[in-house]
Amino acid sequence: MPELRKDPVTGRWVIVNMENPKKAGDFSVEPRARSTKICPFCPGHESMTPPEIISYGRKAPAKNTPGWQVRVIANKFPALRIEEPTEKKKLGVYERIGGFGAHEVIIENPDHEKEIGDLTPAEAELILAAYRDRCLDLRRDGRFQYILIFKNYGEAAGASLEHPHSQLIGLPIVPSRVAGELEGGARHHARARRCIFCDMLARESTEKKLTVFENADFTAFEPFASRFPFETWILPRAHGADFDAVTDAKIKTLAEALQKTLQKIRDALKNPSYNLMIHTLPIHGGRADSFHWHIEIIPHLTQVAGFELGTGFYVNPTPPELAADILKNH
Amino acid sequence: MPELRKDPVTGRWVIVNMENPKKAGDFSVEPRARSTKICPFCPGHESMTPPEIISYGRKAPAKNTPGWQVRVIANKFPALRIEEPTEKKKLGVYERIGGFGAHEVIIENPDHEKEIGDLTPAEAELILAAYRDRCLDLRRDGRFQYILIFKNYGEAAGASLEHPHSQLIGLPIVPSRVAGELEGGARHHARARRCIFCDMLARESTEKKLTVFENADFTAFEPFASRFPFETWILPRAHGADFDAVTDAKIKTLAEALQKTLQKIRDALKNPSYNLMIHTLPIHGGRADSFHWHIEIIPHLTQVAGFELGTGFYVNPTPPELAADILKNH
Repeated sequence: MPELRKDPVTGRWVIVNMENPKKAGDFSVEPRARSTKICPFCPGHESMTPPEIISYGRKAPAKNTPGWQVRVIANKFPALRIEEPTEKKKLGVYERIGGFGAHEVIIENPDHEKEIGDLTPAEAELILAAYRDRCLDLRRDGRFQYILIFKNYGEAAGASLEHPHSQLIGLPIVPSRVAGELEGGARHHARARRCIFCDMLARESTEKKLTVFENADFTAFEPFASRFPFETWILPRAHGADFDAVTDAKIKTLAEALQKTLQKIRDALKNPSYNLMIHTLPIHGGRADSFHWHIEIIPHLTQVAGFELGTGFYVNPTPPELAADILKNH
Repeated sequence: MPELRKDPVTGRWVIVNMENPKKAGDFSVEPRARSTKICPFCPGHESMTPPEIISYGRKAPAKNTPGWQVRVIANKFPALRIEEPTEKKKLGVYERIGGFGAHEVIIENPDHEKEIGDLTPAEAELILAAYRDRCLDLRRDGRFQYILIFKNYGEAAGASLEHPHSQLIGLPIVPSRVAGELEGGARHHARARRCIFCDMLARESTEKKLTVFENADFTAFEPFASRFPFETWILPRAHGADFDAVTDAKIKTLAEALQKTLQKIRDALKNPSYNLMIHTLPIHGGRADSFHWHIEIIPHLTQVAGFELGTGFYVNPTPPELAADILKNH
């Protein structure tokens, strides 16, 4: 029997197929391609990329040489550029802004073959520290409204290079999904005087039906109204709106939660492509009491058709409780 | 130089690549597959489908036999079902509804190989009449909030059967993209006392930079803030909120606009997969003065990653003015 579920943050409805749910083995996952091209992100090829912005865990002193553990560079083919204008221009009913922004690449580790789940805890923590530090640095430029950290893993998820990397886009606007969560969070807060994300965590701490992994600081769970099979969110258990306020101590437990979650997805679903993104409070003007930063991970298991994009109406073939059960036990 | 553009209805921003735009030939389009399985939608196989709800252009009197031109049936694998309950159930912060709804298939013509653009005008008009009549019929059941008409053409767009067909889903909720357009339309109307869609049409009637095709009653154009390359909308030129109020006379000119638009997309882009959906006023409670029904067509040319889905932030490689220019001249 199908079921319609409402996302408590945004109010979006999804159809969840409860009768003949798709299980982990029912999805066809394309094999990971292995390119034979020279990889510009591998150590020794530093001159093939734009110059280094910062690196972490460096064993050699010179920039743009091997010895780094995490390396941050400008994107060679940026979607936006820091030298573009930021003025808004009205064209009748239309509005546009010059393509101002930042677009950086975070090369996650020197090893071409090692994904986040395969690294040592210390190596994984360096990636998260790089995410945070780049956000803190770019925040100082008042023209940015939002710093978007994301990762496309695998060709089907949009990765054009295999070497494990994440991306950062600094934007003069707030992405619409984040704006929708902010509005929904504010609506709930006006009514209940509580953060809707904290309410979900409180319910889950007793129900435990959606939880995939938890430690002292973070909970990974399948959202009640997941749009996609095995969609997984990681939330700090204590209320916090800004990802970039995460402390070094919390980076350790966040790295653990992220690694465990990605390992479970890798093992249960035969190493699927996935997208990861951080939703955080916009730099200017968001309400910190009603927004709760989190990481969203979407494994690439189904063909998303324009239908879903054009209507905002999703059909999820796997109940989130079943997905949680499968991932928890991996 | 990249450019950020704001959708005047919803307020969503997209990045449009203005510098090295992708042209019609730059997209790789998968060849149309030809299945060798027996097609349940072909004439003579009527017993393989659920019973006929209605048919059009029938030359033989008996139901569920050949002789039909358009045939409407219940979906054999429905996403929602008419016999499910409609009660809302609260589970703490969560909310769900039983999977009540209707799911129908509109078999567009007897010929397995003929797409909408290949039909005679009279044949294409029958499809649109079927869309309208099914909406009018289901509207009488007060439990529906929204009747969603859509079409997935080609495997990449989610079509599981080749034989040209559209689908209808009757929903007890309003899809979120439609809800977003309603809200945006109401915002603009509160400020300007005009329909934002009418304002776009008025601007386009003098600018002509985005128009793909127009006749006396309908305009097909590329939205200023298109999320996807060659995304095309068809709007009635006179204000109207309800698709199902379309008259027989307007069905003729709508069929012309739809056929011309689909022919241009087919010819310019090597017959790509596409999704089509109708956005119309919800059955209960929408504001007819600030919403304007329309058809959205999204050719399947780029890999849409979870990144776009997770952030609501799109990067469009083809400026809509260029797409309009290419389609107009085909």
